[in-house]
Amino acid sequence: MSVLAQLTAALGDLVDTRAAALEEARADRSGHAAEGRPLAIVHAETVAHVQETMRIATATRTPVVVRGAGTGLAGAANAGEGEIVLSTARMTAVLEVRPDDLLAVVEPGILNADLNRLLAEHGVWWAPDPASREISTVGGNIATGAGGLLCAKYGVVRDAVLGVDLVLADGRLLHLGHRSVKGVTGLDLTSLVIGSEGTLGVVVGATLKLRRRVVGTVCTIAATFPDVRSAATASAALTASGAQPAIMELMDAASLAAVHTVLDLPAPTPGAAQLTIQTDGPASEAEADAIAEILRVHQGSVAVTHDPVEGERLLAIRRSMHQAMASLGTALIEDVSVPRSAMPAMFDEIARIERQYGLTIPTVAHAGDGNLHPNFLFAGAETPAHVWQAADDLFRAAIALGGTLTGEHGIGTLKRRWLADELGDDQWELQRQIARVFDPLGILNPGKVFAPDA
Amino acid sequence: MSVLAQLTAALGDLVDTRAAALEEARADRSGHAAEGRPLAIVHAETVAHVQETMRIATATRTPVVVRGAGTGLAGAANAGEGEIVLSTARMTAVLEVRPDDLLAVVEPGILNADLNRLLAEHGVWWAPDPASREISTVGGNIATGAGGLLCAKYGVVRDAVLGVDLVLADGRLLHLGHRSVKGVTGLDLTSLVIGSEGTLGVVVGATLKLRRRVVGTVCTIAATFPDVRSAATASAALTASGAQPAIMELMDAASLAAVHTVLDLPAPTPGAAQLTIQTDGPASEAEADAIAEILRVHQGSVAVTHDPVEGERLLAIRRSMHQAMASLGTALIEDVSVPRSAMPAMFDEIARIERQYGLTIPTVAHAGDGNLHPNFLFAGAETPAHVWQAADDLFRAAIALGGTLTGEHGIGTLKRRWLADELGDDQWELQRQIARVFDPLGILNPGKVFAPDA
Ligand SMILES: Cc1cc2nc3c(=O)[nH]c(=O)nc-3n(C[C@H](O)[C@H](O)[C@H](O)COP(=O)(O)OP(=O)(O)OC[C@H]3O[C@@H](n4cnc5c(N)ncnc54)[C@H](O)[C@@H]3O)c2cc1C
Ligand SMILES: Cc1cc2nc3c(=O)[nH]c(=O)nc-3n(C[C@H](O)[C@H](O)[C@H](O)COP(=O)(O)OP(=O)(O)OC[C@H]3O[C@@H](n4cnc5c(N)ncnc54)[C@H](O)[C@@H]3O)c2cc1C
Repeated sequence: MSVLAQLTAALGDLVDTRAAALEEARADRSGHAAEGRPLAIVHAETVAHVQETMRIATATRTPVVVRGAGTGLAGAANAGEGEIVLSTARMTAVLEVRPDDLLAVVEPGILNADLNRLLAEHGVWWAPDPASREISTVGGNIATGAGGLLCAKYGVVRDAVLGVDLVLADGRLLHLGHRSVKGVTGLDLTSLVIGSEGTLGVVVGATLKLRRRVVGTVCTIAATFPDVRSAATASAALTASGAQPAIMELMDAASLAAVHTVLDLPAPTPGAAQLTIQTDGPASEAEADAIAEILRVHQGSVAVTHDPVEGERLLAIRRSMHQAMASLGTALIEDVSVPRSAMPAMFDEIARIERQYGLTIPTVAHAGDGNLHPNFLFAGAETPAHVWQAADDLFRAAIALGGTLTGEHGIGTLKRRWLADELGDDQWELQRQIARVFDPLGILNPGKVFAPDA
Repeated sequence: MSVLAQLTAALGDLVDTRAAALEEARADRSGHAAEGRPLAIVHAETVAHVQETMRIATATRTPVVVRGAGTGLAGAANAGEGEIVLSTARMTAVLEVRPDDLLAVVEPGILNADLNRLLAEHGVWWAPDPASREISTVGGNIATGAGGLLCAKYGVVRDAVLGVDLVLADGRLLHLGHRSVKGVTGLDLTSLVIGSEGTLGVVVGATLKLRRRVVGTVCTIAATFPDVRSAATASAALTASGAQPAIMELMDAASLAAVHTVLDLPAPTPGAAQLTIQTDGPASEAEADAIAEILRVHQGSVAVTHDPVEGERLLAIRRSMHQAMASLGTALIEDVSVPRSAMPAMFDEIARIERQYGLTIPTVAHAGDGNLHPNFLFAGAETPAHVWQAADDLFRAAIALGGTLTGEHGIGTLKRRWLADELGDDQWELQRQIARVFDPLGILNPGKVFAPDA
């Protein structure tokens, strides 16, 4: 019996072979697509469906690409010729919410924002807030180790998961981690699964660590600077001062101009860069005033508002970045992260790379944690060779500044050729061997993360 | 050439074979000692010394027990017949302190409290604060995944390490993790090493995540309750209310009475249990008042002080627990952790176990995170069989309540026979295979954590 026939026999109409669906599963939001077409999509609705799919995949040695919402930016969920797409998007149940223990037990397919709307009724929230929170799944957030706007103050996914239930390549189900806040029983496999991009197993459930909702006025500060370097210097100075804003987003001149255009706003001062900052909690107003003072000392032209609607309007400028880039052509969205004091130097490197390769690279940054998203713009669908060369240069510059290839988007297919550069060959090989312990046949997301470049 | 001769040829008088030193290395602070005597202690002073030792150990297949300060409570650093003790206690350098990036790069042998005294000069601190902070090393804290009094609010070691430098069993050096606060390049091996109890490699350096020193008055609240159940219920209610004290320690009646005796204080009311709570930060006084109110509603007789000296005096009662237990005989110090709402039920189980096995089990708890330390008292040096049976009962009760065998002390030798009960056989085997990827010959801390019980 063919693989497809086995799947259909076992899973009936959960198995989807519609051409349009298969076509969609070839790509994520990076714009890159896999070669060829996957065999089928299995829309798992239960843990048993996932286990059954993996048993068939193991028996037939068929590659499996796990897929949440497909919003990834690293090509990690892209499925190609002959692969099974195992979608966890229909597993959306919230099994338990315990405000007293600050935990929730959820299935992987629920969208981040849907979960948080539900948690809000209990006075709690799950802190990871990728800009894609309305469209990405909690399982995908866990598998990528997602970050977001609030993470400098409230942490990334790695800080917000107590345990995961994982189906291995051969279909066995493991319960990793704890329900208690503390626990050091054996090796911390929960952390190993966070950010593993579908290479170790299928996340079929998670025990999430929640926070109590923050009280107090959210204050928003918008500050304009003569250029991006002074904005980066101001944000590094702010971190060094001990201030802890909830959000601190930086936009360079090209980003700012592009967003103003798509939102039909008056053009910003040429060359000007912007910091958009929010403070929250009981002392938010005093903190906002202190921050405004520091920014002014660092050449900032500063406006503060205590009005949440006006604050959301200011932040909407940052949130429109993706849309603005799409209006300018194709963007290779990069994701380097550096120690916060190195941010001005990293912006200098980006300016150098723009000049050297004749590119425009509008860049935004989660400035509170040193995570930059340079958008390499080009025409057409395929990333041209010189853009990859420029990206290569960017990665090396970030690593030389004590930083990393990827702060939150992951390696996937798009960055696998640089992984060993950062890890070193010994660590790369060790990581690959660890993945093999989970997946001895190498059927989980093959060609991703660890694959030697074709 | 014998192993000892090879070590001496390579490392000269760093190799220590004095009988008293070897005798000491057989045991940690659990009171349990390994069988037989180790071959030698290597007092490594540099990474190269560690690498050289591991190369000889690999070439000769000699087991190696890494040792920090030997303050562990799980028998994980105990070295027996024919083993090499590799001590990192002399590697105490602080290589870098960056208050602006909130990070420090340190060697593993520095004592936790020494590091924090040095960091204080820069206005920063490393949050993990085991009660043993004056006598335990940062490397040991990392290898055990240590917790402490402040960790409900400020996190455990797992939350406070950006990267580690690890020497593998064969002597190769790996740099794991990042200097940037964010980073998702490949698998999170840093987290895997945290809590690995010397089974994956030797931690020879660490990049630590620091916090800015907290400003504001520290307020201390001491509350007495008619019995331990009402104290546990009050603390769970406090967590459920959303209050976030910096410290919340619970002492049951037997603990309180024992400490009052060793400190020469008037005897407490029979049966009474105590919560000692501290709040910190800019809103500490208001928080202390709110907490006092909740405790009163839950039968607490409450006193609040804003005087730091008086606060430290109140906390000294909790800090004297170890000494008080030592005065009563030998104690098997346990370390279960449960979801916070399950604390009252866990205390009921302890009371049942006391009755059932005819034992006295004075218990203290880091009540803010549901981590209990029951002290099983007995006479003589060896833990009697019925005490182990009672401990077995305790572990099963904790797991049944959604908890874990060990919140912060680790598995070592003393809890290895229960590890598979908590992990399940499949996960136990998977973890063992992962350890084998790091250490294919099984020379790193053999017989610890994963060993099937003798
Ligand atoms: C507009 C926009 C803004 C974004 N902003 C951010 C941001 O601020 N921060 C950030 O970190 N990312 C951001 N992203 C990237 C993306 O949204 C995140 O990586 C997200 O976590 C992916 O979730 P997903 O459900 O779409 O996963 P997918 O894209 O479907 O999958 C991503 C990876 O996770 C694996 N995976 C998915 N589900 C599972 C599962 N159940 N078990 C095992 N593996 C699984 C896949 O195999 C793949 O390797 C953004 C993307 C867009 C389009
Ligand atoms: C009075 C007292 C109070 C305590 N309170 C607490 C508490 O509140 N919280 C808590 O978590 N613990 C507590 N402990 C236990 C103990 O102090 C901690 O486990 C501590 O982290 C051990 O550090 P150490 O340097 O003594 O390590 P050791 O005891 O020497 O070693 C512990 C483990 O770590 C490994 N190890 C040590 N150094 C390295 C290295 N460089 N590389 C690789 N592996 C290494 C050893 O092989 C062993 O497996 C307490 C102990 C005592 C005696």
